[in-house]
Amino acid sequence: MFKIAIAQINPTLGDLTANAQKILGNIALAQKQKAQLVVFPELALCGYPPEDLLLKEHFVANNIKALNALAKKVRGIYAIVGFVDSDGKGAIYNAAAIIADGKIVDVYHKQQLPNYGVFDEKRYFAVGKNRGLVEINGIKVGISICEDIWVEGAIYRQQSLGRAKLLINISSSPSEQGKLKLRQELLIRRAKEAKLPIVYVNMVGGQDELVFDGGSMVIAPDGALIARAKQFDEQLLEVDLKAKPQGAVEFLDSDEEVYRALVLGTRDYVLKNGFKKVALGLSGGIDSALVAAIAVDALGKDNVVGISMPSQFNAKATQSDARLLAKNLGIEFKEIPIKAIFVAYLKTLSVYFEGTAPNIAEENLQARIRGNLLMAFSNKFGWMVLTTGNKSEMAVGYCTLYGDMSGGFAPLKDILKTKVYALCRWRNSLGVDPIIPKSIILRAPSAELRPDQTDEASLGAYEDLDQVLHAYVEKHQSVGTMKNNKIDAAYIAKIIRLVDLSEYKRRQSPPGVKITPRAFGKDWRLPITNKYKE
Amino acid sequence: MFKIAIAQINPTLGDLTANAQKILGNIALAQKQKAQLVVFPELALCGYPPEDLLLKEHFVANNIKALNALAKKVRGIYAIVGFVDSDGKGAIYNAAAIIADGKIVDVYHKQQLPNYGVFDEKRYFAVGKNRGLVEINGIKVGISICEDIWVEGAIYRQQSLGRAKLLINISSSPSEQGKLKLRQELLIRRAKEAKLPIVYVNMVGGQDELVFDGGSMVIAPDGALIARAKQFDEQLLEVDLKAKPQGAVEFLDSDEEVYRALVLGTRDYVLKNGFKKVALGLSGGIDSALVAAIAVDALGKDNVVGISMPSQFNAKATQSDARLLAKNLGIEFKEIPIKAIFVAYLKTLSVYFEGTAPNIAEENLQARIRGNLLMAFSNKFGWMVLTTGNKSEMAVGYCTLYGDMSGGFAPLKDILKTKVYALCRWRNSLGVDPIIPKSIILRAPSAELRPDQTDEASLGAYEDLDQVLHAYVEKHQSVGTMKNNKIDAAYIAKIIRLVDLSEYKRRQSPPGVKITPRAFGKDWRLPITNKYKE
Repeated sequence: MFKIAIAQINPTLGDLTANAQKILGNIALAQKQKAQLVVFPELALCGYPPEDLLLKEHFVANNIKALNALAKKVRGIYAIVGFVDSDGKGAIYNAAAIIADGKIVDVYHKQQLPNYGVFDEKRYFAVGKNRGLVEINGIKVGISICEDIWVEGAIYRQQSLGRAKLLINISSSPSEQGKLKLRQELLIRRAKEAKLPIVYVNMVGGQDELVFDGGSMVIAPDGALIARAKQFDEQLLEVDLKAKPQGAVEFLDSDEEVYRALVLGTRDYVLKNGFKKVALGLSGGIDSALVAAIAVDALGKDNVVGISMPSQFNAKATQSDARLLAKNLGIEFKEIPIKAIFVAYLKTLSVYFEGTAPNIAEENLQARIRGNLLMAFSNKFGWMVLTTGNKSEMAVGYCTLYGDMSGGFAPLKDILKTKVYALCRWRNSLGVDPIIPKSIILRAPSAELRPDQTDEASLGAYEDLDQVLHAYVEKHQSVGTMKNNKIDAAYIAKIIRLVDLSEYKRRQSPPGVKITPRAFGKDWRLPITNKYKE
Repeated sequence: MFKIAIAQINPTLGDLTANAQKILGNIALAQKQKAQLVVFPELALCGYPPEDLLLKEHFVANNIKALNALAKKVRGIYAIVGFVDSDGKGAIYNAAAIIADGKIVDVYHKQQLPNYGVFDEKRYFAVGKNRGLVEINGIKVGISICEDIWVEGAIYRQQSLGRAKLLINISSSPSEQGKLKLRQELLIRRAKEAKLPIVYVNMVGGQDELVFDGGSMVIAPDGALIARAKQFDEQLLEVDLKAKPQGAVEFLDSDEEVYRALVLGTRDYVLKNGFKKVALGLSGGIDSALVAAIAVDALGKDNVVGISMPSQFNAKATQSDARLLAKNLGIEFKEIPIKAIFVAYLKTLSVYFEGTAPNIAEENLQARIRGNLLMAFSNKFGWMVLTTGNKSEMAVGYCTLYGDMSGGFAPLKDILKTKVYALCRWRNSLGVDPIIPKSIILRAPSAELRPDQTDEASLGAYEDLDQVLHAYVEKHQSVGTMKNNKIDAAYIAKIIRLVDLSEYKRRQSPPGVKITPRAFGKDWRLPITNKYKE
């Protein structure tokens, strides 16, 4: 069997020129390493998912032009490159080009088109019909694309019956907590079933709400792991199919896996959108502390600015915690009291609000002043604002639209509050001294928008809340199904109601990294106008 | 042939109880009118589109339960009711129940599942397999659902070959400018093709970004229009298939059709989400004038509050125009200068902004103060805020996120600026005296965020801008394709770049009424991170 290189690359969506350069660079490197075949991920040339760019004829035409130009430069090695193919009559395909001797020698079209969760492939692609069997250096290889290997009895089976000696699957499989393990188990099952080695190449990098985590791998016919690439990093992995299996490779601890996905997702969103520096509000609370740590790990401490914006309701302790956190992280820190602005608003509104009791209007104003100040820095200096809200808050609407929800990216959008704690503890475990002050972790969470406010007085214990949210949001369970838990049915019904009523807020929220099987992104498409209650 | 009643109803999404009541009410009324069959729109029982509610098993189960309960009450008449069917093994169908004598006597499952534009039906539904032929009062009837009649050679053809004597199509077809005419032409073609009468029942009402416009109709085998229901209103239309055709019925003028879609979409979004009253910023400009008129026509003048929030950059003339508009419309009017708050922001930020030139930061602050004030009224008194931005602005990002984009609903989100003018002129033509002051229509549009600012100095003439936007947004054309126009290629490239760069803003905008073939809603799914340029 020949020597293969797995090119686990991080392309930028739509940047056909730069992606083609990256692909050519990896091909050259693979050749230096004497590989006879180099394999790239699904839609490596244009990035994944291109969404409605696929509806633009010129986009598809330009990607084919880029592929043809690239192919001409490939000599002395085989390359498999993901791209968008067209039949010239309106149908397009999610495709893999097999390139050799300066030509595209064959093309495989994906057959299984996922159209669930975050995927909309039936919106764009026609179903492929060819067999994906090609001869490479005299050896028959079966080529499939992502979903093709997940669906029982799909093309990989015909390929193994068609005497393939090797199966190759190119993927752009988004990260979810624990997903790498699932993929590996699946590939082991498939390898044993087909009695063939499998080369699996996954994309790496962040694209809006998705993070592709890499972890490309090679499985032997007996199910042994021959090699696995890094998670969350680019890598050109040389593979000798006859090599001794490297044996079991540990999976990352769940907290580390999630944390690294958040770092990569944040870094790529900021940098690929042309920003360098971020700003965020540091309240002295745990959410902003975690986002600050993620931002520093993603972009470096010189590219993160923490801004504390205290009001009369902020405790001295939270303010000094914010300061200490910034010091621990080594980031620029500004402290801007909001009182003068708040007073100006109240004075302006006093004629109209006379005789009314203070309510959510006055609370939200404080959050909105903070949002405006952060956006003023963003507009003045070109920094992207990171929001600090977590999934528990986003779920029940415990957040202010145009206030703390203002910003370009929401790193914790898919992280429940209980997981926020776990991630903070994990991050603190990396050093001798904790980066995130212990007092931040130990203090009862509060929005500090009125005296003596605490989150848990409004929302119940976070342990309970997150349990309900996991069941309702991630599992689509009803009050009826959840009743078996130890949690009060009236409480469950109240939380579900809050989730439903907050849909309009989520619809105006910035994107964040998908981590769970159902994030508040493309995999959550609930109507705003909706009277269904259960 | 028997007497049929077309029940063109406006259900509320997810409100199974209320929708069942509405259906039963219409059945009773149809019986009074001696109809032998009454037909309801696609998914009438649960509302359309239910989106991810369909992924909840309990939602589907409850809709079937509601259908069974409803069926028991139907005696002495046939009813065709759209609902979600389930095979009990995980597959669900977009279905039509044929109900008689207290029972569901037959069910048809939709076969053609649209998965383009705003539609995601393949995400949810399995493809139906039965023939949709049922006997009603001894007459063979072919039943199909929406897309089934649009796709050449689909089930309607087998039904006509299967000796159906009548074709019935139940739909929830969203309004687009000119769509009713398209539908009528299609149905005439189908009727002639099959040599059969067609009864077409469409939904009416607003659901988030969609407006269903009704216009249900009956076409004779020779293509003559036997009857057509109203657009934008509920109606129980009695149809005698043997009656003399009513002859050609005029279509609404394009401006009226669009205006009425905006009114219905706004009314239903506000009311179905439990609001009664709206507030909006009245700048004295044309966009807010049009939104105010729409709001009054949708909700009544007592439920609309106009708030003018002048700064030092607002001309006296725009302020007095805002006042005059409010007077003409008879709505409550407040005038709240923002200077004191603006000064407080600038003072607070002065240390940090020292030495910088005034830029977009200071401009956006003004828009954000206005957004905050409107939201403060919303939070204090429970009014929904309507935003006033149009599609041209939303396209190129000529709007402030968390500023003038703050609000629950954006009536003009899919209306290009040139169309805004047309709609104002149409609305003014209804009365002897113009509701919208002529000076508003004649003045050069300006955001009034700095001295001597005009839109067209920044964006080019709106005539040109809208032409480029129509080609780029609604037709997915590239610079290359558009070059044939008389518009400068560099200008086109600049505008396209602005559209691409503004994706992040649109993603955080409130919903608005879809009017064109491609609105900035579910039919516009572009990535934010995107380096493709053309």
